[in-house]
Amino acid sequence: MSRIVSLTVEDVRFPTSRELDGSDAMNPDPDYSAAYAVLRTDDGPDGHGFAFTIGRGNDVQCAAIGLLAELVVGRDTEAVCADLGGFSRELLADSQLRWLGPEKGIMHMAVGAVVNAAWDLASKRAGLPVWRLLSGMTPEQLVDLVDWRYLTDALTPDEALGLLRAAEPGRAERTARLEREGYPAYTTSPGWLGYDDEKLARLAREAVADGFDLIKLKVGADLEDDIRRLAVAREAVGPDIRIAVDANQRWSVPEAVEWLARLKEFDPWFIEEPTSPDDVLGHAAIRRAAAPMRVATGEHVQNRVIFKQLLQAEAIDVLQLDATRVAGVSENVAVLLLAAKFGVPVYPHAGGVGLCELVQHLAMFDYVAVSGSMAERSIEYVDHLHEHFAVPVRMRAGRYLPPAAPGSGAEILEESRRRFRYPDGPGWSADGGA
Amino acid sequence: MSRIVSLTVEDVRFPTSRELDGSDAMNPDPDYSAAYAVLRTDDGPDGHGFAFTIGRGNDVQCAAIGLLAELVVGRDTEAVCADLGGFSRELLADSQLRWLGPEKGIMHMAVGAVVNAAWDLASKRAGLPVWRLLSGMTPEQLVDLVDWRYLTDALTPDEALGLLRAAEPGRAERTARLEREGYPAYTTSPGWLGYDDEKLARLAREAVADGFDLIKLKVGADLEDDIRRLAVAREAVGPDIRIAVDANQRWSVPEAVEWLARLKEFDPWFIEEPTSPDDVLGHAAIRRAAAPMRVATGEHVQNRVIFKQLLQAEAIDVLQLDATRVAGVSENVAVLLLAAKFGVPVYPHAGGVGLCELVQHLAMFDYVAVSGSMAERSIEYVDHLHEHFAVPVRMRAGRYLPPAAPGSGAEILEESRRRFRYPDGPGWSADGGA
Repeated sequence: MSRIVSLTVEDVRFPTSRELDGSDAMNPDPDYSAAYAVLRTDDGPDGHGFAFTIGRGNDVQCAAIGLLAELVVGRDTEAVCADLGGFSRELLADSQLRWLGPEKGIMHMAVGAVVNAAWDLASKRAGLPVWRLLSGMTPEQLVDLVDWRYLTDALTPDEALGLLRAAEPGRAERTARLEREGYPAYTTSPGWLGYDDEKLARLAREAVADGFDLIKLKVGADLEDDIRRLAVAREAVGPDIRIAVDANQRWSVPEAVEWLARLKEFDPWFIEEPTSPDDVLGHAAIRRAAAPMRVATGEHVQNRVIFKQLLQAEAIDVLQLDATRVAGVSENVAVLLLAAKFGVPVYPHAGGVGLCELVQHLAMFDYVAVSGSMAERSIEYVDHLHEHFAVPVRMRAGRYLPPAAPGSGAEILEESRRRFRYPDGPGWSADGGA
Repeated sequence: MSRIVSLTVEDVRFPTSRELDGSDAMNPDPDYSAAYAVLRTDDGPDGHGFAFTIGRGNDVQCAAIGLLAELVVGRDTEAVCADLGGFSRELLADSQLRWLGPEKGIMHMAVGAVVNAAWDLASKRAGLPVWRLLSGMTPEQLVDLVDWRYLTDALTPDEALGLLRAAEPGRAERTARLEREGYPAYTTSPGWLGYDDEKLARLAREAVADGFDLIKLKVGADLEDDIRRLAVAREAVGPDIRIAVDANQRWSVPEAVEWLARLKEFDPWFIEEPTSPDDVLGHAAIRRAAAPMRVATGEHVQNRVIFKQLLQAEAIDVLQLDATRVAGVSENVAVLLLAAKFGVPVYPHAGGVGLCELVQHLAMFDYVAVSGSMAERSIEYVDHLHEHFAVPVRMRAGRYLPPAAPGSGAEILEESRRRFRYPDGPGWSADGGA
């Protein structure tokens, strides 16, 4: 019998603030970081997972992951891999740890890191990438991944079974199409707020040359700047490329309404995070006022309960799930089922480090086995830090190609983890470890 | 000039699980704990604050508080005390730390602990208890305590000024009445789920003898048990004492509706936490279905944005703010203003350790300077662990007597902190340090 013998945690940070990569109206100087978890067993591959943070506090995020070791170490590996839903529910059910959320913030992301590590472990043991592991499960197995508490007023297990069964016949055909065509992507690489107009224009042109037909710009710090930068981007990409905008929670509801009225002339494809991610009713009010502009949020949405309400309140047109904000793959299956029930397309969030690698699995599983559609859907892409991953994303003409290697995509190369270990890795010395 | 010279943190835990004190349907075995923060200056009293947790993870909560030291140490003490709203907003604005919430969970409670320590410091330096410090501020000063971001669709600073000015003329008279009569309280001491029927009945009778006219029972683990325990309690207290019930988030919305239909015959004064504290729309649905039963929540409500929506959606009849879940006194001023605007009474949460000591200040300030009313209002009371506090609550005939000593009430005696320091304090040895 195989046992999980350890859960170890590493504080890995990349000094991205040096170049203002990732800068937006709320986050001027992020250092993209991973509170990194490794599950080791006594007989096979390790499982890797992490919580994504932007620097300070990554050590505390690591410590929160460490609290889960006593719930994990010593478990029967096969039993964990055979019941990933139950595993996730057990980690969430520790009442003393639950108090620290409940199901939100640092403690919830810690559970997400460990649950994702277990998914990485299970998929490596199965010899499959996570999207294929998920896409090969029966509707009953998929429904059993979900923690149904707090969901049944919007979606019942029986309704979810119905959705999944309806999508079952087309799985093979959609898998084949995915292998041929890849999955649509959009890019945020040109749009960081810290870039000057020239860099913005150059990167926007490069994005189009790379095959993207949707790019995203950060907005919300200064209205006149936003108007100028939108004009610069439009000039650079021409009339046929879609431009979305992202305010990173900068506004109160009345401010958002006012600001968006001014940005309307640029016909943004969507407005992302116009206000607090907690504000379901606020998003609904903004959506009504800004119609027909699409409203998007999700990268900071703490759990399935807020996603449920965003859908119930008709507050969003675009659902941007995040791979490490919630309790991992298991909770994201719930989010995908909710989105499918309400007919809202999913555009996964993937700025940050490793998020592209992770969320592609969720979007591809959604296409194969849940929503059955790639129409009006797109995975965020940022050309950044992929070289540190054991299985980096593969892009072709603005689309993600399905990963073939076993695992979840979370594994960061050991050399990169060593180099960017905080605070003593050589990547943190004055010369960047050059 | 005075400087803040240190922010130190202590992991203090009380082994309450040994007696099943505090046991409910979601939290069977809490060890009431404080992630305890002390601000020291170079010229006067220390400021004390803490985040309340129920055991495991209190060390990580302490570490999160420690992250704030670099934002606090070295500051001008008088400047902090003169602008407690600005201080709170600055702690919340650190973008890298904000990512770990935002404004929720461990990181937000950490800010709350430090903000409350600053309030303790400011009130000790002013020689006033916090409720009197607050009640002596001008409407303009009070409005400036609030972080208005995300609130203005429900309440504007001008509206808040109007509310506060309208309450200004009666402040002196209400202060005098408070000194004479105290503030109404209700008690949860009889109702913990781990107590047998005999202990429940005995404690319920004692509560009535002590002058309480409202008691609260934990429910939600087993319907037949709940029905039996409600009958036992009713038999013990007679027909004139109100009985509230508390499900501690146990139910999904449809379950809550069904369960409450069965408990209706006992005419509970309110149902507390019927479902997830994140579920604004769920609470609204439960309230519509269970009417005229009052719906209450708040002890786990993460911040002012969720409280705003609970009020906007007419989801609650009773708002149960918590002293350490949100970002301290400053954010709770926002919550009190929102409650006053929407005309919803506040019943502060005060199970746990030290919460009675803290929340009484908020309720009394609300009476003197915000809502101006004690009608249909009550502070939770649990007769538990008060002996560890420098300024323990004083009760008379089921009412809180206004604290006279300077400070916020947060200060735990040094000897108690030493004895229950986790894991090496003598209170954690097998014999409880006897």
